[in-house]
Amino acid sequence: MSSVTSKPLFLRAAAGESTERPPIWLMRQAGRILPQYRALRQKFPDFKAFVKTPEAAAEATIQPVDELQVDAAIIFSDILVIPEAMGLDYEMIEAKGPKFPKTIENQGDIDILRSGTEAAANLEYVYQALRITKKELNGRVPLIGFAGAPWTILAYMVEGGGSKTFSKARRMLYAEPQQAHALLQKITDTTIAYLKQQVAAGADLIQLFDSWAGELAPAHYQAFAMPYLRQICDALPEVPKTIFAKGAWFALEDIGQSSCQVVGLDWNTSPAFAREKVGPQKVLQGNLDPCTLYADAKTIREETLRMIGAFQGKHIVNLGHGVYPDTPLDGVRVFVDTVKGMRYER
Amino acid sequence: MSSVTSKPLFLRAAAGESTERPPIWLMRQAGRILPQYRALRQKFPDFKAFVKTPEAAAEATIQPVDELQVDAAIIFSDILVIPEAMGLDYEMIEAKGPKFPKTIENQGDIDILRSGTEAAANLEYVYQALRITKKELNGRVPLIGFAGAPWTILAYMVEGGGSKTFSKARRMLYAEPQQAHALLQKITDTTIAYLKQQVAAGADLIQLFDSWAGELAPAHYQAFAMPYLRQICDALPEVPKTIFAKGAWFALEDIGQSSCQVVGLDWNTSPAFAREKVGPQKVLQGNLDPCTLYADAKTIREETLRMIGAFQGKHIVNLGHGVYPDTPLDGVRVFVDTVKGMRYER
Repeated sequence: MSSVTSKPLFLRAAAGESTERPPIWLMRQAGRILPQYRALRQKFPDFKAFVKTPEAAAEATIQPVDELQVDAAIIFSDILVIPEAMGLDYEMIEAKGPKFPKTIENQGDIDILRSGTEAAANLEYVYQALRITKKELNGRVPLIGFAGAPWTILAYMVEGGGSKTFSKARRMLYAEPQQAHALLQKITDTTIAYLKQQVAAGADLIQLFDSWAGELAPAHYQAFAMPYLRQICDALPEVPKTIFAKGAWFALEDIGQSSCQVVGLDWNTSPAFAREKVGPQKVLQGNLDPCTLYADAKTIREETLRMIGAFQGKHIVNLGHGVYPDTPLDGVRVFVDTVKGMRYER
Repeated sequence: MSSVTSKPLFLRAAAGESTERPPIWLMRQAGRILPQYRALRQKFPDFKAFVKTPEAAAEATIQPVDELQVDAAIIFSDILVIPEAMGLDYEMIEAKGPKFPKTIENQGDIDILRSGTEAAANLEYVYQALRITKKELNGRVPLIGFAGAPWTILAYMVEGGGSKTFSKARRMLYAEPQQAHALLQKITDTTIAYLKQQVAAGADLIQLFDSWAGELAPAHYQAFAMPYLRQICDALPEVPKTIFAKGAWFALEDIGQSSCQVVGLDWNTSPAFAREKVGPQKVLQGNLDPCTLYADAKTIREETLRMIGAFQGKHIVNLGHGVYPDTPLDGVRVFVDTVKGMRYER
């Protein structure tokens, strides 16, 4: 579609330009839905060793571009590289998720964490993966860099892993708000340094994943999440930014006033509601229910076109969540091909 | 406050009457926050044996009324007694949650389930617990009965337990919608028969818990959740009904048009947003962030009064979720006492 000299569809859409069709990529497109990913993964019984091998990460990043012809690549990595770079190690337990042997419990634990450029210097393997990917993509599609949003990273560092309620992390916001702000600032400083290096290594757009945004009360999201998201967006004027705050429908107005260009939506949020809240300027990204891809091809096509119609432009097609690992590859193909085969009516 | 002859505060508020202050109770008030519950629980290593012993369930139900002086009791039970009564057994695994050894996978699995009055006849132990509780409460406070909402019960029966995404259950809605409707109707028929017996046994109000409401796309909530909630509410004209659909902010307009009297809110939903969506008639219930109770007494008092002010009447005070098991009892007391000590300004 686009040569190396013209601006790619994905970046034109992210800039709010009128496009012939919406671009499409999928959160977690590099992953278990692809047979070639599963083959590559077998070489690395340890997930973290996989993430830390730049050649392997680059290969996983490019696989969905080759296989599905999506309009953007997203670097294969994990949001939890940030706590590790700050000095809080984690383990990735197969089929269970991350676990932190030690968690943040008091101010002393926060004080000894590294932060900013010093912490970000530990993530050379990510920058190298971006450089390799960029070279191997050779201009085919743009490359998305990413990081976890500070609240979500704090949630893992305090909770020690996934949780149904994140009540330990949320408890800190009520019981020790000063500690929470100190930790959030250290995470933010590190994330800014990290993302600046991602951009230097070739990332064309940065997405911030606030996976546990929906656990916070609206006033807490304003106090403990938004200020740090704004700091990060404001610190990266050189690229477009996407904020995906899952479950934070109540924060869409605030996100709409931030300096990001793109707002990611989960599948609970109707395009009309989101547009009303974020205003006319932002590009919206999402938001097909990932479970739609379990349906037959006809249903997938209908639901995809219905969704695109509801957004009425200024839209990057994606799912409303990462693609589920057991999604049939054929369903994913129908989704991508439906978008690539349609054109906006003008 | 109220004698046996005058209508209790909780029921006056649920009926939308103007009251001197909002009533208060807590979801999961009968549970691990109380030392006397933990002592009682020790007699029943098996949680299900506990639930099935009417005298013990009645004792757990009354404990928070004695200890905290809340304005309503809620029968101590579990929403998963319904699948079991229909023929799908479950185990309650300590610190992990429910697990169904066998799950619903196809139409044949649905066909062999019992339903309606035949299934509800297996829940005599719940009705007996209600009768004992009612007698022992002796009119002190009203007694709330409850059931899971059909979508949430289906989610457990298909998924086999808790889940981060409930993608297996949601897959059924896309891939096998007719099966989903058949199962939802059987659950609904059983739930109606069950709740009618609860009312006959003394329940003064019925609350429907749609714990996984927030996992559904808005169109799916309209298609697979609302019709069954409406059937249940319409089938119980003799008592007020509360719908608590956690995470289903997008369904508040539909819930507002149902025949329930009270709408429960999670802590993400602002009172103003909810009021706008459900309209002026419904009573709202909630919605303090349960993590507030980890804060100091001053903060709990301030946040409680701020919340009550935001609701502006037609309000039953509660948390926005069940009280977390490690919540300090002193925090719960401050919450209850703050509400009981305040009066609306007229």
